[in-house]
Amino acid sequence: MSFAPLKNDTFVRACLGQATDYTPVWLMRQAGRYLPEYCATRAQAGSFMGLATNVDYATEVTLQPLARYPLDAAILFSDILTVPDAMGLGLSFQQGEGPKFERVVRDEAAVASLAVPDMAKLRYVFDAVTSIRRALAGRVPLIGFSGSPWTLACYMVEGGGSSDYRHVKTLMYARPDLMHRVLAVNADAVAQYLNAQIDAGAQAVMMFDSWGGVLADGAFQTFSLAYTARVLAQLKRTGADGAVVPRIVFTKGGGLWLPEMRALDCEVLGLDWTMDLGRARAIVTAAENADATNAKALQGNIDPNMLFAPPEAIRAEVRRVLDAFGRPHTDTAPRGSTHIFNLGHGISQFTPPDHVAHLVDEVHRYSRQLRAR
Amino acid sequence: MSFAPLKNDTFVRACLGQATDYTPVWLMRQAGRYLPEYCATRAQAGSFMGLATNVDYATEVTLQPLARYPLDAAILFSDILTVPDAMGLGLSFQQGEGPKFERVVRDEAAVASLAVPDMAKLRYVFDAVTSIRRALAGRVPLIGFSGSPWTLACYMVEGGGSSDYRHVKTLMYARPDLMHRVLAVNADAVAQYLNAQIDAGAQAVMMFDSWGGVLADGAFQTFSLAYTARVLAQLKRTGADGAVVPRIVFTKGGGLWLPEMRALDCEVLGLDWTMDLGRARAIVTAAENADATNAKALQGNIDPNMLFAPPEAIRAEVRRVLDAFGRPHTDTAPRGSTHIFNLGHGISQFTPPDHVAHLVDEVHRYSRQLRAR
Repeated sequence: MSFAPLKNDTFVRACLGQATDYTPVWLMRQAGRYLPEYCATRAQAGSFMGLATNVDYATEVTLQPLARYPLDAAILFSDILTVPDAMGLGLSFQQGEGPKFERVVRDEAAVASLAVPDMAKLRYVFDAVTSIRRALAGRVPLIGFSGSPWTLACYMVEGGGSSDYRHVKTLMYARPDLMHRVLAVNADAVAQYLNAQIDAGAQAVMMFDSWGGVLADGAFQTFSLAYTARVLAQLKRTGADGAVVPRIVFTKGGGLWLPEMRALDCEVLGLDWTMDLGRARAIVTAAENADATNAKALQGNIDPNMLFAPPEAIRAEVRRVLDAFGRPHTDTAPRGSTHIFNLGHGISQFTPPDHVAHLVDEVHRYSRQLRAR
Repeated sequence: MSFAPLKNDTFVRACLGQATDYTPVWLMRQAGRYLPEYCATRAQAGSFMGLATNVDYATEVTLQPLARYPLDAAILFSDILTVPDAMGLGLSFQQGEGPKFERVVRDEAAVASLAVPDMAKLRYVFDAVTSIRRALAGRVPLIGFSGSPWTLACYMVEGGGSSDYRHVKTLMYARPDLMHRVLAVNADAVAQYLNAQIDAGAQAVMMFDSWGGVLADGAFQTFSLAYTARVLAQLKRTGADGAVVPRIVFTKGGGLWLPEMRALDCEVLGLDWTMDLGRARAIVTAAENADATNAKALQGNIDPNMLFAPPEAIRAEVRRVLDAFGRPHTDTAPRGSTHIFNLGHGISQFTPPDHVAHLVDEVHRYSRQLRAR
C-alpha cells in the first residue's frame, strides 16, 4: 500500500523522543458527541455500531475534529469492544446505558470456548483505517487502537460497565487459572488486531488500559501489565510504508505503577490527571533508566472537566501542565522525555466545542514560547 | 460522662504507634447489608435514614458484626451525608440509586446561603455515639466519623453520586472562590461534628475522603488536602474520659499523594488496595519524617472483592498484605509505622459472611506468628 507523505510529523517525532518546534496535541475521544456534526452523522447511521462499522461514516467522523481544530494526530473512530464482539459475545449499545454483551464469560465452559477471532470479522475496522489514512492525505498521522487485555476482560466478564468489578475480580481471585486463559487469548487477539491496523495504514497504535487502575497492587502487575507486555512483544515495528510505528500504553489510574510501566517495550506512556508530569518525567528519565532505548515520551494529562471553565482559565491550566512537564527536549538539551499534550481521559460529551479551540491554541502558542526561551 | 474501661486497646495502641501483640482489624462498612441481621433491622426501621436516626437501631446494627467476629473496633453506624442534610439540603435514599439531595449547591446564591449547621440537628448522631459506647461496655473502642470537606462538597454540588464529577469540577475550575467558600463551611462543620462525637464518647475519629482521588494533582492539594488539614487543626485531642483520640484520614485513590499526606497532623493514614503497604511504610518512615510526632500508622488495604474468593485464597491474601507491611513494630524494634488491618474500601453487600470470619481469624493468627519470629 502506498500513502501520501506525512506533512505534519510533530506527533510521531515527539513519540520517538525527537525534538519538535512545539508540543503536539490531540484529545482522547476527539471525534465524539460534543461535536454537533458528529451527532448529525450518528443520527444518519442510526446507531453507534452502525457508525463504527461503516467505512464512510467512520472516515467522516474521524476527520470532523480536524476540520475544527489544528490537532496534530487523528485517531481511528471505533470502539475498544470490537475484539470481544468478534469473539461472538454479542455487543450492543443501549441508549444511555453504555455497552452490553449478550453473553458473559464467567465459568469454565465460557472460558474454554474463547479463541482469537478470525480477523476477517474485523475487516470493517481495517478498511476504515485505510480509508481514513487516504482521506488524511498526509495531513497528520493516524493512530490505531485497542483495549488492553485486562480492560477487555472486565467487559467480557461483567457483561458491560461496572462500578465495583465484582464479577471480574471474583473470577480473578477465585479462579486465576481461568483469568490467565482469558487474558492470554485477549493478548494474542489484540496483537493480531493492532498488527492488522498497522498493515492497513495506522501510523501509531495505542492500548487503552482503562480499568488497570481498579486492580490491587500485585494484581495489576500479574493480570494487566504482564498481558500488555505480551501484546507489545508481538507488535510490528514498522508500517506499510516502512516508517516506525510508535506504541502508546495508557493505564488510567496507573501513576503509582509508573516505575514498573517504564520498563514496557513501548515509546509512550499515557497519564491521567492525578499524576504530576514533572514527577512522571523524573521517573521515566531516572539514571537507571537513562539508556536511549528505554526513554519514554509522556502523553497527557489535563482533567477533561477543566474544559467547562472559562477560556482564560483553560489557557492558564494548559500553561500549568506544560510547565509541570518542564523544559522541552531539544536537540542540544540532554536526552530526556518528550511530551504529547492530551486530556487525562476522554473528552466529555457536554464540552463546549469552542473551549477546545482555546486549549489547542494555547498548547501550540505557549509550547513554542517555551522553546524560544 | 463516665464509661467502662477499655478492655481491648489493641486498635488504639496501634493507632498511636505503640507495639501490640497482634495486628488489630476492623472493616469499613462492617455493619451493613452483607449481614442478614442488618437487613432484618433495616426492614423494621423502614428506611436507611430511619435506621440511622434511631438511637436503638443504630446501636443494634453497630454491634451486630462484633457478635459474629472478634473485631478490634466498632464504628458508629451512620452516613457521611448527615452534615449536608443538617445544612438543609434534603437528603434521601432512593432504593438502589444511592443518596440524593433535594437542593444542589451550584450557584452563587446557593453557596452564599450555606452555613455551619446547628449541631443540635445532629443530636441523633451524638446520642447514638453515647448509646453505642455504653453498649460496648469497654469491649472494643468506638470510632466516630465524617466525610471530608471535599467529599461532602462532591455530593452537595452533584446532588448525589456521580461518574464524572462534572458539576463539582466545573464549579471548582470556573469559580474557585465559590468552591473555597463551600469547603471552608464544610471544614468547620465537620470539625464541630467530630468534636461533638468525641464529647459524646467516640474513642477515635476518621475522615472519609472517598472522592479525593478523582482530583487532578494540584487540585487535590488545594481543594481536598488543605481542608482536611483545616478540620484536623480544630479537633479535640482527648475524649470525655481524658484518653487521647487518634485521628484517621482515608483518601481513596490517594496513594500517589502519600508523601504530602504524611505531613497531616493525624495519627493514621488509610490506604486503598492500589498501594503496596511496604512502599507506603517506607514513605511515612523516611528519614526526613522520622521524628516521633510525625510517625503515621497505616490502615488497610485488602481489595473487598478478594472476599469472594474461597477461604484459603482469602487467608493467603491476608498473609500477603501483612507481609507487604513487613516486620511488626515492637518495643525493641526501631521506631516505625504500625499497621491496622482493614479493607481498602467498604465491604460489598454481596460478601458471604462466613468469608469475613476467615479474614479476621487469619489477621489475628498470622500477625501473632509474625511477632513470635
